Amino acid sequence: MQKVFIVLCFLYGITGSILAQSLRSPDGNLEMVFELDDKGTPFYSLNYKSQEVINKSGMGFDLKNDDVDLIDNFKVESSGITTFDNTWKPVWGEEASIRNHYNEMEIKLRQQNSNRILVLRFRLFDSGLGFRYEFPEQSELAYFVISDEKTEFAMAGDHTAFWIPGDYDTQEYDYTRSKLSEIRAIMEEAVTENLSQTSFSPTGVQTALMMKSENGLYINLHEAALVDYPAMHLELDDKTMVFESWLTPDVNGDKAYMQTPGHTPWRTIIVSDDAREVLASRITLNLNEPCKIEDTSWIKPVKYIGVWWEMITGKSSWAYTNELAAVKLGTSDYTKVKPNGTHGATTENVKKYIDFAAKHGFDAVLVEGWNIGWEDWFGHSKDYVFDFVTPYPDFDLKEIHNYAQSKGIEMIMHHETSGSVRNYERHMDEAYKFMNDNGYHAVKSGYVGNILPRGDNHYSQWIVNHYQYAIEKAADYKIMVNAHEAVRPTGICRTYPNLIGNESARGTEYQAFGGSKPNHVTILPFTRLIGGPMDYTPGIFEMDISQINPDNNSHVNSTLCNQLALYVTMYSPLQMAADLPENYDRFPDAFEFIKEVPVDWDQSKYLEAEPGDYLTIARKEKDRPNWYVGNVNGLESRTVKVSLDFLEKGKKYIATIYGDTKDAHYKENPQAYEIRTEKVNNKSTIKQFTAPGGGFAISIVPDEK
Amino acid sequence: MQKVFIVLCFLYGITGSILAQSLRSPDGNLEMVFELDDKGTPFYSLNYKSQEVINKSGMGFDLKNDDVDLIDNFKVESSGITTFDNTWKPVWGEEASIRNHYNEMEIKLRQQNSNRILVLRFRLFDSGLGFRYEFPEQSELAYFVISDEKTEFAMAGDHTAFWIPGDYDTQEYDYTRSKLSEIRAIMEEAVTENLSQTSFSPTGVQTALMMKSENGLYINLHEAALVDYPAMHLELDDKTMVFESWLTPDVNGDKAYMQTPGHTPWRTIIVSDDAREVLASRITLNLNEPCKIEDTSWIKPVKYIGVWWEMITGKSSWAYTNELAAVKLGTSDYTKVKPNGTHGATTENVKKYIDFAAKHGFDAVLVEGWNIGWEDWFGHSKDYVFDFVTPYPDFDLKEIHNYAQSKGIEMIMHHETSGSVRNYERHMDEAYKFMNDNGYHAVKSGYVGNILPRGDNHYSQWIVNHYQYAIEKAADYKIMVNAHEAVRPTGICRTYPNLIGNESARGTEYQAFGGSKPNHVTILPFTRLIGGPMDYTPGIFEMDISQINPDNNSHVNSTLCNQLALYVTMYSPLQMAADLPENYDRFPDAFEFIKEVPVDWDQSKYLEAEPGDYLTIARKEKDRPNWYVGNVNGLESRTVKVSLDFLEKGKKYIATIYGDTKDAHYKENPQAYEIRTEKVNNKSTIKQFTAPGGGFAISIVPDEK
Repeated sequence: MQKVFIVLCFLYGITGSILAQSLRSPDGNLEMVFELDDKGTPFYSLNYKSQEVINKSGMGFDLKNDDVDLIDNFKVESSGITTFDNTWKPVWGEEASIRNHYNEMEIKLRQQNSNRILVLRFRLFDSGLGFRYEFPEQSELAYFVISDEKTEFAMAGDHTAFWIPGDYDTQEYDYTRSKLSEIRAIMEEAVTENLSQTSFSPTGVQTALMMKSENGLYINLHEAALVDYPAMHLELDDKTMVFESWLTPDVNGDKAYMQTPGHTPWRTIIVSDDAREVLASRITLNLNEPCKIEDTSWIKPVKYIGVWWEMITGKSSWAYTNELAAVKLGTSDYTKVKPNGTHGATTENVKKYIDFAAKHGFDAVLVEGWNIGWEDWFGHSKDYVFDFVTPYPDFDLKEIHNYAQSKGIEMIMHHETSGSVRNYERHMDEAYKFMNDNGYHAVKSGYVGNILPRGDNHYSQWIVNHYQYAIEKAADYKIMVNAHEAVRPTGICRTYPNLIGNESARGTEYQAFGGSKPNHVTILPFTRLIGGPMDYTPGIFEMDISQINPDNNSHVNSTLCNQLALYVTMYSPLQMAADLPENYDRFPDAFEFIKEVPVDWDQSKYLEAEPGDYLTIARKEKDRPNWYVGNVNGLESRTVKVSLDFLEKGKKYIATIYGDTKDAHYKENPQAYEIRTEKVNNKSTIKQFTAPGGGFAISIVPDEK
Repeated sequence: MQKVFIVLCFLYGITGSILAQSLRSPDGNLEMVFELDDKGTPFYSLNYKSQEVINKSGMGFDLKNDDVDLIDNFKVESSGITTFDNTWKPVWGEEASIRNHYNEMEIKLRQQNSNRILVLRFRLFDSGLGFRYEFPEQSELAYFVISDEKTEFAMAGDHTAFWIPGDYDTQEYDYTRSKLSEIRAIMEEAVTENLSQTSFSPTGVQTALMMKSENGLYINLHEAALVDYPAMHLELDDKTMVFESWLTPDVNGDKAYMQTPGHTPWRTIIVSDDAREVLASRITLNLNEPCKIEDTSWIKPVKYIGVWWEMITGKSSWAYTNELAAVKLGTSDYTKVKPNGTHGATTENVKKYIDFAAKHGFDAVLVEGWNIGWEDWFGHSKDYVFDFVTPYPDFDLKEIHNYAQSKGIEMIMHHETSGSVRNYERHMDEAYKFMNDNGYHAVKSGYVGNILPRGDNHYSQWIVNHYQYAIEKAADYKIMVNAHEAVRPTGICRTYPNLIGNESARGTEYQAFGGSKPNHVTILPFTRLIGGPMDYTPGIFEMDISQINPDNNSHVNSTLCNQLALYVTMYSPLQMAADLPENYDRFPDAFEFIKEVPVDWDQSKYLEAEPGDYLTIARKEKDRPNWYVGNVNGLESRTVKVSLDFLEKGKKYIATIYGDTKDAHYKENPQAYEIRTEKVNNKSTIKQFTAPGGGFAISIVPDEK
């Protein structure tokens, strides 16, 4: 770690007060300017290679029941610039080591009419800016309530945005590509139905928000290290193109309960004239604290299958019986009711999945619907909805565990909470202990439906606090967490790498609920994945869902090769092969790629990228010489030339290319693929067609002959 | 247990539908009539010795988001009357065995326009009526939300009531005696300040509500077995004198989330023309379920002292330091701050209390302010406010435990939650385990201040559910609970006798906060104590609080003998001697009564009673021949003749009488008492003066000479 003090440049006005202060990124391309106006309100602005990225934007807070808001009357008490350059090794990740290099400006402000101190901390990386508010311990400020955070992000133009509706309860929306000025007109249509949703404004959108300016700048707004604070949305003034932070409120409409010393999460602005640099940015991770788990040896990337898609498609059920209208755990007697015959999590069925996982080299099997309570789990605002430890009569936990162990397969636990957060916390210790006792090392948790306590929302400070509690407590039990419907990630996985996955976006399940846009997966890496890995559950080979369940006419808007590519393009240490085993058996050659592709990496190369249109990424397997390339495509077919200059010089490789055929199409002909091999080296270029909603996947392994 | 079917008497109308159905109490004095009106709305009424007690009163519910409320269109599907007579032995109580004798009417109603079934269950005891609504498992009703319970209690006149304001957060009010019609005019004045309070209506009052009719009927309205349902208040229509149930709402204004099979708590109406019978009624306990704890050997009544009054009076502090404005548990370093020098829970001070307890034969010592976090515990809506396991640096837990053990003294744990309910639940297992590990067998818990989660209230279904959770979990750890600021008790202690105390009313602490009305303790047994024992913390000998803390000018509105009497009149298996040891040392002769008086009983005799005016009770010590008599008096001095006809015939006793002197007065001369002994037998009468706000206490032990 290096902290070097740099001489400050102050720009003094006539009165002698500090008017503006400038900070440059290590490479000099980004410049952030801080200034106080004549009312003592702090502002910042950002430019990239002399182009305006963020116009002069206000900063501060409205406080509840306080005579003085933290918004003006500030004077600079001290300031300083330091530089930091350090490289750290993540437990898992897109690369084996990550450089954390920034120049930092600390501005200590004193409010003249309250004598309170507010510290603004700006970290300017080559790829963007992070800043946060800090509230040091002080006599004039101990406890306070933020009624509004007034951070502005003043856009320099009517950019094209890739956005989903701002919502206190869900991010499971399809992305819309539109001008900022068009958001208002489209919003109503964009707010599609969800099991729990609370949108708040016709111009409110979620982070991470991806934008592109007319002159080709890529701008991404998000936050890092969201801990004990409400999630931030962005509310657009579509006349001025100024976003303001819009925090998720509590039941009283208050935003954040604060205590000194304390601070907000980091607000992040990634910017580049090359979209690939947005994907390569490590701002979000770097702004989080280093790993707090001492022994991380138990944290391991996982490739898994699961008793899941058959329920998602409606072929089988989570519930064991259709005879219980209102389950009372501990009272309802499952041995006295008639099984419905469609229950997915039966011992027999699970064993088939275990066999399949073992045969094809997967690490683990997830089983949903294994525990009692699914008969009435949703929509009743039910408090005691699951106990997380009692299996259905047809799920023989011990037998399954022994069977899996004998085959070298891990079982993945499932904790659906139905949004009943208090109930989960009440049972958490026992549930985690049960996992320890029964050999489960990872849990998929879920927060489907409205939150209990009633009146609260998925992204409020109170519930954000819960997700963090669950992660930290899981770490105490050496349990890895994959939380669905939780708040979108903000790089917490650096500090708690047992958080190996999150959903927090529209995942593959929506392909069985009516379908997602074919270019969805070209956007997610620029939005949802900025915060951390997603359990997207790719790998669907049968796109016609009615083949699985005749009552379900949904279509998976993706070619088969697009599905393969996702294992590379959608970075995650947790990757599912989501389709039914029988569907993989129908396409054993294509399935080879899923079997082979690793889930941990030494290096990642972002070969080409344009949000909404296409994405090609190459990654080198962790501790091995193999490379994997993935391409996902938007609506227009393309031919991609992949230069393999990243390969080791002078070394021979064999590339296996899984590509769309010329007549492939996400809708009309999704299963049209061809597989070929080429002998390649670092001078080679692979030319490959990619269909609408298509893609390709390439494995490149040393030619050992 | 006996269940005898009794032939039903139906009164048929012209149309052949059932118009009314009658139920009589075992002694015949009470008659309850159930009827359906021509709209199919159920009604009940109650009379006592042919006097109207409850006029025809409606029953039913408004449901949320439901086309059909459970209010009318009912027809009687079946009905039946049974009788029940059984005697059970409480683990502790006012008497060694309790008779549970009632006639029960079950009315099964079917709603014609919904096909739903509602069961009304009436239990008529000699001392009053209990009834509840039951929702059997059925196809047309699984989950529902009660937006309003419409149970009416139509009074037959403008009775005199002893009431406190209806409030979602506190019962810590002084009682007002007024006509029902006068409540509205007095309400504003009656809502005195409290650390957390939410009154809801100018005619809303709390249960247990005590009333007296002009023709001398004593009527008490309350509820029994409040489990997983909001606490009921009473909203008065002061034109018609009809009360309607007013349930504590949740943040959305909803009242109760229900699931079938399920039921409400019991609504209770105790009635008699003799006020003593109200005190002798065991309706509340009898309507609760039998004990659910198998081994109750660890549950024992407790007489205790505590490091408490010195903080209440302001002589010492709960907090260790004045230097921490905002504590962060786990981060704030108490070894680096300056102690404030007023901290009460120091090892040295606690040892003095242990010495005193051992010297005078007490069972236990309570210590408040022993654990870190008290510097900023109140008023900040602070989530992580206490951890319940970390002592202050000057509280040597092990040393104190060893010292107490060596002296045969138990330590009582203290868990103040500051209303932060989630935080308490998160730490509960660890806190209870910590108690087990460190030899604590009882905990005083507290819920001072507004509830977290924010927007919720002390008496909502959600938080009522928490108190129950805490009691049941404590039972798992063999821990006895004394919960302060929790919901008022409703006889739950029959089912969970580890609930040995509650506050839930204006306790003795208010005598150091400005004082309570001198006749307060003549009312509490008719109101708050109907639901269960109260940790009233009596035994104050120094009435001038400025003698303890010169900055506190509060006066204890009670004579010293009134304080002694409370150990008999305020039944509780948990009794504190609340004053400072040095104040007991000043009055060693009077202190003898507190040392001697037991905390568990074989029999209780209610010798005379008039709410607001006076109360004289005699009780026989459990498994011993000794009797104790207590009298508390209202505002007018009296001379009481206590007939000792309850003593064993032919046996000689010595009575020691602790009485007010003729010039005693709660305000002017509270410490004026005299002690005398008399030789007595079952033909004796003791004549004793009792001053305004005064009282007397008598111990009667066999004359062994």
